[in-house]
Amino acid sequence: MEVVETLTNAQFQTVYNIVSFALAAMSATTVFLLAVTPRVLPRYRLALIVSAMVCFIAAYHYLRIFDSFGDAYVAVGAGMPGVQETFELVKGDGFNEGYRYVDWLLTVPLLLFETIAVLALPLAVRRSLLWKLIPASGLMIILGYPGEITAEIASKAIWGALSTIPFLYILYVLFVELSKAAKTQPNQVGKELAGLRWLLLATWGVYPISFAFPMIGFDGADAFVYRQIGYSLADVLAKCLYGLLIFKIARIKSLDDSQEFAAEEMKEAPSSKGAAA
Amino acid sequence: MEVVETLTNAQFQTVYNIVSFALAAMSATTVFLLAVTPRVLPRYRLALIVSAMVCFIAAYHYLRIFDSFGDAYVAVGAGMPGVQETFELVKGDGFNEGYRYVDWLLTVPLLLFETIAVLALPLAVRRSLLWKLIPASGLMIILGYPGEITAEIASKAIWGALSTIPFLYILYVLFVELSKAAKTQPNQVGKELAGLRWLLLATWGVYPISFAFPMIGFDGADAFVYRQIGYSLADVLAKCLYGLLIFKIARIKSLDDSQEFAAEEMKEAPSSKGAAA
Repeated sequence: MEVVETLTNAQFQTVYNIVSFALAAMSATTVFLLAVTPRVLPRYRLALIVSAMVCFIAAYHYLRIFDSFGDAYVAVGAGMPGVQETFELVKGDGFNEGYRYVDWLLTVPLLLFETIAVLALPLAVRRSLLWKLIPASGLMIILGYPGEITAEIASKAIWGALSTIPFLYILYVLFVELSKAAKTQPNQVGKELAGLRWLLLATWGVYPISFAFPMIGFDGADAFVYRQIGYSLADVLAKCLYGLLIFKIARIKSLDDSQEFAAEEMKEAPSSKGAAA
Repeated sequence: MEVVETLTNAQFQTVYNIVSFALAAMSATTVFLLAVTPRVLPRYRLALIVSAMVCFIAAYHYLRIFDSFGDAYVAVGAGMPGVQETFELVKGDGFNEGYRYVDWLLTVPLLLFETIAVLALPLAVRRSLLWKLIPASGLMIILGYPGEITAEIASKAIWGALSTIPFLYILYVLFVELSKAAKTQPNQVGKELAGLRWLLLATWGVYPISFAFPMIGFDGADAFVYRQIGYSLADVLAKCLYGLLIFKIARIKSLDDSQEFAAEEMKEAPSSKGAAA
C-alpha cells in the first residue's frame, strides 16, 4: 500500500468526504439492522444481527481510517500569495491502510455466514456450505495482503494470483452448490438470492482492480485517490446494501412462512403475495 | 460555499451554539424515535425506524460540522488591551460544508420514504410513489451542489433553476398524487398529512433562500452566519419535528386500526366494549 507524499486540496477533500460517507453509512446501517430485527420471524434474526455486526466492525475501522488519514497530512501553503495549497504527509507511515485488511478478515467470513443463515437451509447443508466458504474467504484475504504491501510487481502478481484461487472456489460454491441447495426456496427468494450473488461478485471485483492499479502502471496521487474511492464505495455496497438485501429476503420469507405474521405486519391480507410468486 | 476569513466573537459563538443545538436535537430524537417504536402497531414501525435513521445520519454530520467549524478558526487578540478579539480562519479549507450535501443526499430520500411508509398504502401505490419521489430528490440535491460551490452568480442561478425542477415535481407528487392515494385514510390522519406536507414545504423553502443569498448581494460574515442558522434550524424542523409528526400519525392510525391495541395503550378505552382486557 503505497502512501502518497503530496495531495492537492481537491484530492485530500475527496478522500476525506468519501471515508466520512462510508462511516455514516456503516454506522446508520448497524443501528437500522438491529432496530428492524423484530420485523422478521425469529428464525431469520441471527442473519440480521450478523449483518449488523459486519456494519459495526466496518464502522469502527472507518472511524480509524478517517482519523488516521486526517492526522497523516498537513495543509501547507494555504493563503500564501502565489502558492498552491497542498497536503503533505507528515509521518512516513501516518495513513494506516492495514485497517482495511483487518476489517475484511473479520467481515468477509461474516458476510458469507449471513448469506447462508438467511436461507434457513437444513442444518447439515448449512454446515457443509459454511465449512467450504469460511476457510476459503480467510485464505483469500491472507494471501492478498503480502501482495498489497509489496512494491515489487512480480511478487504482487504472484500473491494476487494465489489469492484468486480461493476467490474462484467461493464463487463456485455460491453459484453452483448453493443453487442446488436453495432450489426449494420461494420464487421471489430465488430472484433476490441471484441479486445478492451478483452484488457480491460486482463489489468484490472492485478489490482486485484496485489491487492491480500499480501492475498496470497506474500510480501516484490519482491512483491513491481512486483506490480509496473504489474500496470505500465497494465496502458500502458489499456491507450496507448487502445487509439491506438480507433484510429484504428475511422479510419476504417471514411474510411467506406465516400468514399470522403477515397480517400483523401489513394492512393488506397475505393473499397479495400470490401475485408476486 | 464561501468560507469567511474573519468572524467576530459573537458571530463565532452563534454558529457554534446553533450547530451544537442541532446536534443535541438530532441525537435525542434518534433515541426517542427508537424508544417509542413499540408504541405503534408493527405495520408502522419501519416508518419510525427510518425516521430515527434520518436523525442518526444528521447527528453524525452535525458532529463533523461542529468539529470542522471549531478546528477551522482560531481566536486572535483575546485579552490584548485595545484590541477587538476576532476568530480567524486557520486553513483555507478548514470548514467543510460538503457534509451538509452528503447528509441531504442520504436523508432526503429517507424522509420521503418514511412519509409514504407511515400511510401503509397498498404495495403497488407505495412503490409507484417512491419510484417517482426518490430519484427526483437525489436529482434535486445533486443539481444543487455545483451551484453551491461556485462563486459565479450566473452559474449559481442556472444550477439553482435546474435543481428547482425536480423539487417542483416532488411537490406535485406529494400534493396531487399522494392526496388521491391517501383518500381512504381516517379523517384525523388526513389533517396530519396536510400538516406534514406544509412543514416539508416551509422547511425545504429555507434551503433555496440560503442558497440565493449571494445572488441578491447578501454576502460576507453576516450572510455566512445567517446561512448556518437557516440550514441548522431548517434541518431540525425537517428531521426532528417531522419525525415526531410521523410518530403522531403512526400512533393515531395504530389506535384507529386496533381496539385491542388502543385498550392496552390508553387508560381510558375509546369505547366501553374494548375495555375488557
